[in-house]
Amino acid sequence: MTLTIRKATRADVPAIIRMLADDILGAKREAYADPLPQAYYDAFETIARSEMTEQIVAEQDGRIVGSMQLTYIPGLSRQGMSRAVIEAVRIDTPLRGKGLGSVMIRWAIARAREKGCGVIQLTSDKARLDAHRFYERLGFKASHIGMKMDLR
Amino acid sequence: MTLTIRKATRADVPAIIRMLADDILGAKREAYADPLPQAYYDAFETIARSEMTEQIVAEQDGRIVGSMQLTYIPGLSRQGMSRAVIEAVRIDTPLRGKGLGSVMIRWAIARAREKGCGVIQLTSDKARLDAHRFYERLGFKASHIGMKMDLR
Repeated sequence: MTLTIRKATRADVPAIIRMLADDILGAKREAYADPLPQAYYDAFETIARSEMTEQIVAEQDGRIVGSMQLTYIPGLSRQGMSRAVIEAVRIDTPLRGKGLGSVMIRWAIARAREKGCGVIQLTSDKARLDAHRFYERLGFKASHIGMKMDLR
Repeated sequence: MTLTIRKATRADVPAIIRMLADDILGAKREAYADPLPQAYYDAFETIARSEMTEQIVAEQDGRIVGSMQLTYIPGLSRQGMSRAVIEAVRIDTPLRGKGLGSVMIRWAIARAREKGCGVIQLTSDKARLDAHRFYERLGFKASHIGMKMDLR
């Protein structure tokens, strides 16, 4: 078994969208079709061009089994500290609960340090108590409330 | 009274750091000195060069009275939706509770729409109940837990 965590390429986009669509919320929000809507590729190109954000995938024996997006935000506070933000963590259904999530989040933490970030953060739906325990075991503190507003 | 909300320039950096340092947490974290440590100007230049993030200030009669940072993160999920993130909102002490915060956050919401974002979000310390009510009045939902880890 070979596991590789790396930046995604354009060819990985359908596999990432398959995982994004594979849950109750995602099924309503995504359009996982063949061919995939162009909007996904456009968004991927915007991410790929940016130095501030990276789409990451986990590949096991040639198959994409995990994905997440990491963003590094420069800031003035704390004497010019950058912070890393983790978004859209997904693990392929057959691999859930087998430690891949921990491997990916530890990779994200190491990557954030490499990028010079002083804090790494994420938001998790209030109802997802398992996820909160998972992140707390990895060293995160549930210190904040995540507030969101839909604009469409 | 004239209020302008605009992108910050390098000359605004000391006024922004003065506000960042002006609270219990900030006093420990910031180094508001004359001259200001170079790290602040370096971080400002990184922000100014980026297309994904903007340092914003509110100016009233020639004085900087508010600041916030807005970041626009492209993403694959929700059919290639971008999201806006608000960080480091500060209001000058004499102006707190006078409506400037609402004006600034409404400006941020309009700016996020202009940038094509489908969601706007922020995290707020669990203890800051007044802030949660403030953001809820403006239309935000406290739907998530904000998890953070210090890396230094």
